[in-house]
Amino acid sequence: MNARLGGPSAQRLECSDPPGPQDKMKRYEKFADDIAELIRSGVLAAGQKVPSVRHASRTYGVSPSTVFQAYYLLEDRGLIVARARSGYFVREQVRRPLAEPEIARQQAETTEVDVSELVFSVLGSIKDPDTVPFGSAFPAPELFPLPRLARSMAQAVRDMDPRAVVTDMVPGSHSLRRQIALRYMVGGMPLAVEELVVTNGALEALNLCLQVVTQPGDLVAIEAPAFYATLQVLERLKLKAVEIPVHPREGIDLDVLADSLEKLPIRACWFMSNFQNPLGASMSEDRKRALATLLARHQVPLIEDDVYAELYFARQAPKPVKACDSEGLVMHCSSFSKCLAPGYRVGWVAGGRFSGQIERLRLMTSISASIPAQAAIADYLQHGGYDRHLRKLRHALEGQQNAMLAAVARHFPEETRVTRPSGGYFLWLELPERIDALKLFQLALAQGISIAPGPIFSATRRFGHCLRLNYGHPWSTRSEQAMETLGRIIRSL
Amino acid sequence: MNARLGGPSAQRLECSDPPGPQDKMKRYEKFADDIAELIRSGVLAAGQKVPSVRHASRTYGVSPSTVFQAYYLLEDRGLIVARARSGYFVREQVRRPLAEPEIARQQAETTEVDVSELVFSVLGSIKDPDTVPFGSAFPAPELFPLPRLARSMAQAVRDMDPRAVVTDMVPGSHSLRRQIALRYMVGGMPLAVEELVVTNGALEALNLCLQVVTQPGDLVAIEAPAFYATLQVLERLKLKAVEIPVHPREGIDLDVLADSLEKLPIRACWFMSNFQNPLGASMSEDRKRALATLLARHQVPLIEDDVYAELYFARQAPKPVKACDSEGLVMHCSSFSKCLAPGYRVGWVAGGRFSGQIERLRLMTSISASIPAQAAIADYLQHGGYDRHLRKLRHALEGQQNAMLAAVARHFPEETRVTRPSGGYFLWLELPERIDALKLFQLALAQGISIAPGPIFSATRRFGHCLRLNYGHPWSTRSEQAMETLGRIIRSL
Repeated sequence: MNARLGGPSAQRLECSDPPGPQDKMKRYEKFADDIAELIRSGVLAAGQKVPSVRHASRTYGVSPSTVFQAYYLLEDRGLIVARARSGYFVREQVRRPLAEPEIARQQAETTEVDVSELVFSVLGSIKDPDTVPFGSAFPAPELFPLPRLARSMAQAVRDMDPRAVVTDMVPGSHSLRRQIALRYMVGGMPLAVEELVVTNGALEALNLCLQVVTQPGDLVAIEAPAFYATLQVLERLKLKAVEIPVHPREGIDLDVLADSLEKLPIRACWFMSNFQNPLGASMSEDRKRALATLLARHQVPLIEDDVYAELYFARQAPKPVKACDSEGLVMHCSSFSKCLAPGYRVGWVAGGRFSGQIERLRLMTSISASIPAQAAIADYLQHGGYDRHLRKLRHALEGQQNAMLAAVARHFPEETRVTRPSGGYFLWLELPERIDALKLFQLALAQGISIAPGPIFSATRRFGHCLRLNYGHPWSTRSEQAMETLGRIIRSL
Repeated sequence: MNARLGGPSAQRLECSDPPGPQDKMKRYEKFADDIAELIRSGVLAAGQKVPSVRHASRTYGVSPSTVFQAYYLLEDRGLIVARARSGYFVREQVRRPLAEPEIARQQAETTEVDVSELVFSVLGSIKDPDTVPFGSAFPAPELFPLPRLARSMAQAVRDMDPRAVVTDMVPGSHSLRRQIALRYMVGGMPLAVEELVVTNGALEALNLCLQVVTQPGDLVAIEAPAFYATLQVLERLKLKAVEIPVHPREGIDLDVLADSLEKLPIRACWFMSNFQNPLGASMSEDRKRALATLLARHQVPLIEDDVYAELYFARQAPKPVKACDSEGLVMHCSSFSKCLAPGYRVGWVAGGRFSGQIERLRLMTSISASIPAQAAIADYLQHGGYDRHLRKLRHALEGQQNAMLAAVARHFPEETRVTRPSGGYFLWLELPERIDALKLFQLALAQGISIAPGPIFSATRRFGHCLRLNYGHPWSTRSEQAMETLGRIIRSL
């Protein structure tokens, strides 16, 4: 165990931590991560006692105060609990474990998409900031280092070369693209700065990619359930959806996909391989490789929406499918909106062989992302302590997930199935079949609680008894009460 | 004349100057504007002596130092020149006056647009910052108050409510929309804040509008010559262009338009009514009213691209066609990119009856303009002295136009025809028919000078002997030499 704590962890840090001394992981954080890994892998089981401070300090050669700090952190992350006079124990994750949602192994269907009205009516009604934001698509803004970003912004605009306002427009700020390329590199996926186009958030990147590889009427393979914006974009561009089922843990069903690629003239795929919205599913590296191979065989491009990639709870960042792509078929889209700078609207795409076309389309649509926002983020990435922020954010989300899972177990019917994603900030719940999620949505809203009802995630209005809950906000008594209220409404239906 | 100096001017200032003491026009600026108006209207003719300082001071009841300052300003604006020991004279605008370009009275044609490749190859080759930027689409960045904006940005991000990063997303920052609505109001065109959608620059606004009112294959009336991005957007959206000729002074040919609306199923018009790019044409208010009436009769929406509206040289801001529209058919698009904050990518549309649809389309494409950029501009509009900046900018552009016109007259063949727009920063030149503007473009580029060749402004590759020159950069010896070189190349062709 000693070797385990010392070796791979230290190595990983060397290669995945970007420059900047402020970003070095503290000793206690590393130690906490190691314990977290033991819990995750089951070496330390729920209810089991964690080594005492004295014991741990001696065994692993760290100071008692390091162990203390690590245990405090693990407590915050919702992984261990202190019991008076007995020390720390691995937390019983939920009072009674709930099952995972079932995957319907239905065949892929081809559909005209017509869901926008429903989505708009749902989204429009949850804008009130006083509503409990379980239906929100965003994490709490207070989880982001907005004051530090503000300093980067002030610095960046003060130092900006006036010519940058013109020269940086397309394909985007060179220094930002360099920083992004650097992060790909330390993540083990080197790519050329020239492949990167900065966009107004990931959604614009996704729109551009889709328009570059499709024409109205074309078939596009998407996930079921899918992020509702995917459905809206397909509808808008008059594309037809081929819905491929997603397994809550393993991600896209590759057999169904292979079959569909064989039988249908699919022009593009649009998938999230990590912490898929809404299911939270992440594909294993093997499955990602298999997907890349499958797409290469059919020469079908993949638009990879990877906006939650940084929000992983495990020890290591998941790799994208793009890392397995040797043909330039994968357009890897991401942004800083979900992990650093919401509202700045800075995203990007590493467009593979389509980069040039994406850049040109860009010039005809919105030209450029805001130059000051790009400059601010470039400055922050270089000096702001991004990795430190990300670690804090991941720990917060992990703790909040545990709190929400516990609340689901406490207040929801026993038949409720729920995902337990290893990253992101969404839970997907499958309620008893009789429950109408749209009705639940209305009733909850009347009580000041928003949820995201299942049907907005499907081109075919499936998932009528499912919902997505956002745990991206600090857990509070109000959250707990809202869960209790939701549980009561569900039981009343 | 005294009345003229006192009356309408003072009144206009009362209603068109937004709050903030720093924005009050100085006495000498008002006086200079009055003299400029006399020159423009021909009361003071070219070569005529301007009243002496003593005479002017007595007649108009202003101090001699006010007159001095006014005359310095008018000299900067290129309107008067000092002659040693004789005083100031109205400047002979050009050594020999050049004729205006002729308008080809051809009928409207319906065309598939296919010009992107040409535009990209032209634009791609003029990116080098060391090239003399006569072909550029932007004015010089040093004409903008970027340091003051940087302060507004620093202030705005420091004070920003974290929740704003989510709540301000669509349809845009409320305080920015309020400021924009206020400017419409003082311009005599009150509209509801709710009608405004903030966009990533005007080009995104124009794209959204077009997509809201058309389907692929539809006919759209555009100008000939037209801003090349218009052509690219039509090409991208698979729309067909109906080219309506533009008169260099009067704007769009309303007879041809009326005829086309009668005969063809035109689904939308996309026009610039003020300082049209590339011709610089501005429609009179009467013609704007006539256009609004014509469109109302046919119930055809107008996408009004009004990005140069603030860059007028006359005493008063021109009104948009939108001011004559009582049916909500006009979508008025503009931005801060050409007059305040290039690279911030903040534009907007007042979408009339289409506002709701535009906002929804927005949610499916790029969601929002950068929130910090919006906040910075809102702060600047409130506290930064926008009107003072605009006056300086207009005077600079006016002076630069005069310098470039003089250089055209000095160095270009006598048959050259050139526009003299009353705003914006483009001249349009018609060279002798034998001159191939694309060839000229190549030869000039080899000498480190960019121009915008005529054919990129036409869906039908017309204007082969025309070019657009940008006078948006401070005039220098280098500019003069570049004009001389251009003249030499033209003569060699």
